[in-house]
Amino acid sequence: MPNTFGKLFSVTTWGESHGPGVGAVIDGCPPRLPIDAAEIQAELDRRRPGQSDIVTPRKEEDRVEILSGIFEGRTTGTPISLLVRNADQRPGAYDEMREKFRPSHADYTYEAKFGVRDHRGGGRSSARETVGRVAAGAIAKKILAHGVAGGGVEIRAFLTQVHDIVVPAAALEKFPSLAEVEATAVRCPDRETAARMIERIKAVRSEGDSVGGVIECRVRGVPPGLGEPVFDRLEADLAKAMLSLPATKGFEIGSGFSGTRLRGSEHNDAFETREGRVRTATNRSGGTQGGISNGEEIVFRVAFKPTATILQPQQTVDRQGAATELIGRGRHDPCVVPRAVPIVEAMTALVLVDHWMRQGAQNQVFKF
Amino acid sequence: MPNTFGKLFSVTTWGESHGPGVGAVIDGCPPRLPIDAAEIQAELDRRRPGQSDIVTPRKEEDRVEILSGIFEGRTTGTPISLLVRNADQRPGAYDEMREKFRPSHADYTYEAKFGVRDHRGGGRSSARETVGRVAAGAIAKKILAHGVAGGGVEIRAFLTQVHDIVVPAAALEKFPSLAEVEATAVRCPDRETAARMIERIKAVRSEGDSVGGVIECRVRGVPPGLGEPVFDRLEADLAKAMLSLPATKGFEIGSGFSGTRLRGSEHNDAFETREGRVRTATNRSGGTQGGISNGEEIVFRVAFKPTATILQPQQTVDRQGAATELIGRGRHDPCVVPRAVPIVEAMTALVLVDHWMRQGAQNQVFKF
Amino acid sequence: MPNTFGKLFSVTTWGESHGPGVGAVIDGCPPRLPIDAAEIQAELDRRRPGQSDIVTPRKEEDRVEILSGIFEGRTTGTPISLLVRNADQRPGAYDEMREKFRPSHADYTYEAKFGVRDHRGGGRSSARETVGRVAAGAIAKKILAHGVAGGGVEIRAFLTQVHDIVVPAAALEKFPSLAEVEATAVRCPDRETAARMIERIKAVRSEGDSVGGVIECRVRGVPPGLGEPVFDRLEADLAKAMLSLPATKGFEIGSGFSGTRLRGSEHNDAFETREGRVRTATNRSGGTQGGISNGEEIVFRVAFKPTATILQPQQTVDRQGAATELIGRGRHDPCVVPRAVPIVEAMTALVLVDHWMRQGAQNQVFKF
Amino acid sequence: MPNTFGKLFSVTTWGESHGPGVGAVIDGCPPRLPIDAAEIQAELDRRRPGQSDIVTPRKEEDRVEILSGIFEGRTTGTPISLLVRNADQRPGAYDEMREKFRPSHADYTYEAKFGVRDHRGGGRSSARETVGRVAAGAIAKKILAHGVAGGGVEIRAFLTQVHDIVVPAAALEKFPSLAEVEATAVRCPDRETAARMIERIKAVRSEGDSVGGVIECRVRGVPPGLGEPVFDRLEADLAKAMLSLPATKGFEIGSGFSGTRLRGSEHNDAFETREGRVRTATNRSGGTQGGISNGEEIVFRVAFKPTATILQPQQTVDRQGAATELIGRGRHDPCVVPRAVPIVEAMTALVLVDHWMRQGAQNQVFKF
Repeated sequence: MPNTFGKLFSVTTWGESHGPGVGAVIDGCPPRLPIDAAEIQAELDRRRPGQSDIVTPRKEEDRVEILSGIFEGRTTGTPISLLVRNADQRPGAYDEMREKFRPSHADYTYEAKFGVRDHRGGGRSSARETVGRVAAGAIAKKILAHGVAGGGVEIRAFLTQVHDIVVPAAALEKFPSLAEVEATAVRCPDRETAARMIERIKAVRSEGDSVGGVIECRVRGVPPGLGEPVFDRLEADLAKAMLSLPATKGFEIGSGFSGTRLRGSEHNDAFETREGRVRTATNRSGGTQGGISNGEEIVFRVAFKPTATILQPQQTVDRQGAATELIGRGRHDPCVVPRAVPIVEAMTALVLVDHWMRQGAQNQVFKF
Repeated sequence: MPNTFGKLFSVTTWGESHGPGVGAVIDGCPPRLPIDAAEIQAELDRRRPGQSDIVTPRKEEDRVEILSGIFEGRTTGTPISLLVRNADQRPGAYDEMREKFRPSHADYTYEAKFGVRDHRGGGRSSARETVGRVAAGAIAKKILAHGVAGGGVEIRAFLTQVHDIVVPAAALEKFPSLAEVEATAVRCPDRETAARMIERIKAVRSEGDSVGGVIECRVRGVPPGLGEPVFDRLEADLAKAMLSLPATKGFEIGSGFSGTRLRGSEHNDAFETREGRVRTATNRSGGTQGGISNGEEIVFRVAFKPTATILQPQQTVDRQGAATELIGRGRHDPCVVPRAVPIVEAMTALVLVDHWMRQGAQNQVFKF
Repeated sequence: MPNTFGKLFSVTTWGESHGPGVGAVIDGCPPRLPIDAAEIQAELDRRRPGQSDIVTPRKEEDRVEILSGIFEGRTTGTPISLLVRNADQRPGAYDEMREKFRPSHADYTYEAKFGVRDHRGGGRSSARETVGRVAAGAIAKKILAHGVAGGGVEIRAFLTQVHDIVVPAAALEKFPSLAEVEATAVRCPDRETAARMIERIKAVRSEGDSVGGVIECRVRGVPPGLGEPVFDRLEADLAKAMLSLPATKGFEIGSGFSGTRLRGSEHNDAFETREGRVRTATNRSGGTQGGISNGEEIVFRVAFKPTATILQPQQTVDRQGAATELIGRGRHDPCVVPRAVPIVEAMTALVLVDHWMRQGAQNQVFKF
Repeated sequence: MPNTFGKLFSVTTWGESHGPGVGAVIDGCPPRLPIDAAEIQAELDRRRPGQSDIVTPRKEEDRVEILSGIFEGRTTGTPISLLVRNADQRPGAYDEMREKFRPSHADYTYEAKFGVRDHRGGGRSSARETVGRVAAGAIAKKILAHGVAGGGVEIRAFLTQVHDIVVPAAALEKFPSLAEVEATAVRCPDRETAARMIERIKAVRSEGDSVGGVIECRVRGVPPGLGEPVFDRLEADLAKAMLSLPATKGFEIGSGFSGTRLRGSEHNDAFETREGRVRTATNRSGGTQGGISNGEEIVFRVAFKPTATILQPQQTVDRQGAATELIGRGRHDPCVVPRAVPIVEAMTALVLVDHWMRQGAQNQVFKF
């Protein structure tokens, strides 16, 4: 089931960029959770196009309709089907894509794999598919906020880098608030850096070019014990979740790639008892050890490549393999990373709820 | 099934570091593949302890026994059960671990999750578990070498970094041969760099310390079309496979984290027709686009933290949460990365065979 | 994923009887299959209420909308999302069900499991859920008719029993045509028996009572080799598929329960060579041996209990456990079995396509 | 994963009849369960050959070895690997099977599917494979007896029919004790009927023939709420479990096939409050409604065909399709049904523990 994520809290997304709509079915959502369309809509509004002057002006409301699984304001334990109609269908705008493969897009590989593709706006490979993920993630977030370990699991993603502009480490010492992240169009909690990022994005856009960046995601309030070695380690499932997002090229947790330059004596997180429970003095592990959460903050980073669509002529080939030239068109984000923030949070929430439920299966059984 | 990897070519590993043995069951292996114990043994010998003077001197032959699924030298399509007895059981050597949590190991998290653990040598969280992965990977490698796309899929992993010693880019321009990789104890194809890495490992070992590093893995011969969007993207499954390995902290494919510093116009891989088929002029994508292989070399890197076991006193707590000190003992690798090379290759092979078989399900059906 | 059926050709159904709609998402459908809404609609029309004078007069068109996965008349290999809006919502008609548990319905067990339920018309437990199965089955049937083993897999279900009226064995010697089955309102290919069945159904309806019956399903054209021992035997997956249908109480294949009264010497199917291939002289096995199809006709039967809703007073309890009386209301089928025929066929098609694709994964790999 | 059963409590079996051994890996067993090899051995002894004078005299001890997952007498939550060596290997005894297909065995279908097979004693298709199921079932039974709903889930299978000899209904009014079942060689709790069954089995054996029969299985103590509609209904998973056993041809729950002859007014189970909780006055439902347990006794029956191996000449073909004759040899049960009793119980236990754990996932989350 290549379009399903999660073993117990399972989300199946469907839909193409320019078909009738996109959506998701959530199977396994526990019953009795109070939730309504407005709460899901709020997360969709965070990923919506047209929300600021540095993202695509594509005009879509992305209005969610709940088709099943919620009755009188509460989940019933049956599948929740969510539908968002596509509004912005412009027939003809994508005719060139039918024959030419856009560089560093999925046009060629979809054609190679399936022998057919919906070329309009990238079809299934469009980031529009993530609408379903964000909608499902809104429900997962509510579970985490209220249902897990007495409540209080909080997920916060934000930009730490755009092109070569990097947030200073000092600015990230404390857990950023949602307000701090949402305060800037680039979703970087450091206002000064955010301003420079915005300036850079506008500059490359004016040249018809694009840039990438890095998102950091932190989670606090996760109890020790989540994660299922040896293969379904918590960080393994987070890595898969992140690399399943369009435009991602890397994932690291805790000390990540830079940790390879430390010695064991510098890298190890000493244990201590703090606030009545076992804690680590440092957090180079990034919140998991041996694939299982240790109760510390989960910290990971995701690399996003520069947007593949650029408004400059590029060399490519057509479906017959003949050399040709292509000029990007349409309305695209010169930097997708700010809009990816709610998507990273959604996928994180899906992973955590799924693992929380898996832990429940074990807890159910034993009183021994 | 937290101990199973793969949807169609499925590998379940079992076993603890100091229990009776470790092993794997492979379900879904296609029938009629010629394979014998010696071919599996050859891969196990590459990960075996005691193979050079920079790895742990733990003395285990790791002799594999085939218990089922292979008849008269060929697979039968039924489950293949592989068993490796543990030989090096030293009762009493690990008594201290019963009560004290080793920093940056999984002792505490296993205790938190399960309420019980086999403390001897890390039990299930020991890298000894990867014996089963390597044994299964040997079979997957043979399928790739002979059965896929006319044969010829070749996987090569090697070290590009130990501590702060990095292979020069120029030394990696061509696809390294197996002989070049195996020529040095650190499995780095650049001899000069390898010598410096070995020196560094010996130096930190003499101080009772440890170091980490980076493995690069390249795969050539993969046909276009492998990978199952949107969630089971090829790179997503590779990321999960790598982050499921002990001591890993990061994964990146193609341009990875450094690609975030390029512009779209610098990063995009232009298409061209070469050798009669669609190719890309550059390979910043790392062999996949939109989650599907594009026929170019697959290139990814994995970050390994420094070995958590060091022979220095460390602060920790015991099971009651009382502060205590612990001094690493036993025979450990000061740098696990060289022995991780065959493990990275094994996991890569498992991912590729699984995706090749998934593609087969589609191909079966249609002649349309 | 309790609402998903199939490992490679996976169908997820969603929706409640009186919510906004019902539907299905099909993940894993091979690309390039020509299919349009009319072909799906044709199967839905076979299960639709109001199609004859012995079924419920509930008036719903059950008009299917394709939301994704089909482009320019062909499947694209991406998820196919299908939506059928519920039209016949009568607020207030089901108020009594909110508090009282209907005997032999799922009201009590849903309440016990989930602590909440959509009581309107049975909510999720209503047979209306099978709309999604039939829609997905229409696609599977087309694959079987055209894509498998050169085409020509044909599935035919029909009634062999209503209450104590049983079709004579002689009437079932040949494979019934679709026209013969659809010729009578009860979908029994023997006209004389059908007339008696219809009479019986009308008689019990006039008394506010209901009856059950038996469906036989035959499949011809299945090649040898489908089925995945030891657990995913073809008959095991068929049994699961049938027992997952509302109102079913039994499944038997080939000789079934009556075969237990034969001796081995009477029961065994001798092999012979016929029409140039290995065949069995008899077919007490029912088309599978050891869990794998043997190329003979697949023959199985499914037992359906009498409709639980009857228009007579019944003893029951309310949510507080207090004794009360309930009189069935609403518009119900006095015998659900005729409308279950297309549903049995749909589930059979889902099982067969899934196993055909699983076989493809094996075939992909080896040329050895 | 065709050789794995269960989603959370997952059992993978492996092994061929005449290979080195058979076994199972249990993944997902909750931690801290006290269990030792003797408890597993006790169940294996119940299915062992040679236990009475009406079963095969094949002499195998079937001694189980625990290879992992149990430490100091308790499960650790990691995979439990169990191994039983095959002792009775008689090279040459099965040479005829290499070329000839035994009627109503799986020789032909395995050859058709895989293109290769281990012909010795049926290889993987031998009922010897069920050793792994019974071993895993022993652990599941212990969980059910002690860990579920305060303890006390009890599973009891027994024969109700051999050939045309049927236990009188009156003899089955109460839940049979284990002692009553084990008291007779045929595992029928009615001594008088058992004596006739034994006589019949001996009579057909003396003629080189075989007979089948029916097993009934009852489960008491199951709390309401187990089962996962719409596809993973409790009865659907039980049906699959039973039809996955060698030689089974049918499954029915509660009123089963005979219930199709009742009217709704006769068949419905009225609700009442008894012993302080909601109960049904009758149990034609067989313990589940809408796919979910209702707290009543679960009652189902399984049809077993007569043993395919008979010591009489039979017509068949060889691998080239040429007509030939075959005379059954070797030591076989003239009636496999008595030895199938512990296997039916084992599969039932696997289904129930898996569903109990799935219910735990839901319960974990909500306090709402």
